[in-house]
Amino acid sequence: MADYLDSLKFVSPSGEAIDRSPAAVFRQKCRNGSFTGITSGHCLSFVQANVVILPYQHAYDFLLFCQRNPKPCPLLEVMDTGSYEASILAPGSDLRSDVPLYRIVREGRNEEERTDIRDLWTGDMVCFLLGCSFAFEGALLEAGLGVRHIEEGKNVPMYITNIPCRPAGVFSGNLVVSMRPYPEAMVPEVKAITARFPKVHGAPVHSGDPAAIGIRDLGTVDFGDSVEVKPGEVPVFWACGVTPLVALRNAKLPLAITHSPGHMFVTDGLNSELAI
Amino acid sequence: MADYLDSLKFVSPSGEAIDRSPAAVFRQKCRNGSFTGITSGHCLSFVQANVVILPYQHAYDFLLFCQRNPKPCPLLEVMDTGSYEASILAPGSDLRSDVPLYRIVREGRNEEERTDIRDLWTGDMVCFLLGCSFAFEGALLEAGLGVRHIEEGKNVPMYITNIPCRPAGVFSGNLVVSMRPYPEAMVPEVKAITARFPKVHGAPVHSGDPAAIGIRDLGTVDFGDSVEVKPGEVPVFWACGVTPLVALRNAKLPLAITHSPGHMFVTDGLNSELAI
Repeated sequence: MADYLDSLKFVSPSGEAIDRSPAAVFRQKCRNGSFTGITSGHCLSFVQANVVILPYQHAYDFLLFCQRNPKPCPLLEVMDTGSYEASILAPGSDLRSDVPLYRIVREGRNEEERTDIRDLWTGDMVCFLLGCSFAFEGALLEAGLGVRHIEEGKNVPMYITNIPCRPAGVFSGNLVVSMRPYPEAMVPEVKAITARFPKVHGAPVHSGDPAAIGIRDLGTVDFGDSVEVKPGEVPVFWACGVTPLVALRNAKLPLAITHSPGHMFVTDGLNSELAI
Repeated sequence: MADYLDSLKFVSPSGEAIDRSPAAVFRQKCRNGSFTGITSGHCLSFVQANVVILPYQHAYDFLLFCQRNPKPCPLLEVMDTGSYEASILAPGSDLRSDVPLYRIVREGRNEEERTDIRDLWTGDMVCFLLGCSFAFEGALLEAGLGVRHIEEGKNVPMYITNIPCRPAGVFSGNLVVSMRPYPEAMVPEVKAITARFPKVHGAPVHSGDPAAIGIRDLGTVDFGDSVEVKPGEVPVFWACGVTPLVALRNAKLPLAITHSPGHMFVTDGLNSELAI
């Protein structure tokens, strides 16, 4: 029984008691407005999630889009309609206030950013939490494999590829990838480490020639910042959680709410618990 | 690009051309009514799937039930509403006729079994294909680990546990498990092999004392047949694809259609392609 329930509850497989209070304390700071920044570097051991909040009317299409495109859209938790507590990953949380900064998207346009959405909340809304690559970056660093954008103090470089996602209802768009460069000899190890994290995009989708996936110039990012690719290094590309946000933009819904990029929802789950 | 598209298309990772025609030929026999039997032992290399067909009205709840209970309900493909072709796993298929035997469930009762559902089909129906443990049984046999119910020429023993699934809307119920006995020393290897198949239930949910998961007597099965557990062997339990069928029964929908147990839908995917 333990194995099954543990996999649902994100309890350590060894059954040891884990102090999850730092994540709850951090969410409290977001809730009361004393933290509104980028979450990179905060609560390092804890799973940080992409957030999408939609009216129920579009929830089936979005859930199906995630099912059909699991590499860019790894679902961690979907709440009951009208519920704003992530009862599995963050008991006691309030998704209307516990994200440091929200983005309000209307008709596909980023209308505003704000720290609280309580006045926009209606009982027909559905909250989705999706995995984010922060989790496997920790594993790469622990293995002594540098992560270039962290070394350079930047956001990860992201590109829209020419690879179409499988559409679902109103949601469609091309795959977005993040890029981290590595010496060619290290690529197999990089692949093996990240393959252990299927809930946070898993193994790379491509390595080598950017043109093969429709990227003309690594220096020209679609999101984030460009980083140096040194001689002897090859670019390695992972499916990216910005993919569903692009599909959301393309759908031009009257209202959708997401986290503001980099301002993730911090859960009680540990990154180490995501590994298989 | 290859990695990502291949993972969606169930094309061999090596990119080699695979002759998938035996599966299509087999489906043709189901379609014209010349095969109506149990699919165990047929098209051995190919992925066989559990089938659930529901009106769109209940599709969101069912999709969410599967998302929340991925071990017993590993989704392989969800078709567009009104589509009866499994365009990813079995291009050219017709889910209204290509299952050897269907079960018609009304108000939670098994009303009838039949070989064709074309006259019941309506444009608001959604087809779900879910993984089945046949795939990992092949891997166990290849590793020289016997599978008792196959040795005894029986159906696998299945039990309803005391472990509740996470409910979703109208769907709820306890986890159903299948059981295969192994000598205690072999259990770690059995776990490692089946863990490579998360799309077909993956690693066991429990091994050892049946009472720990609410099973009083291994000789009294809830589905399938009981098998011998020899001295020195421990029962090993896997999440089972009958779980969603029990949840479906509990929901008492006006109409739901599934495969008849053991009469699976044969896809073009290879079992070897399901391994991670």
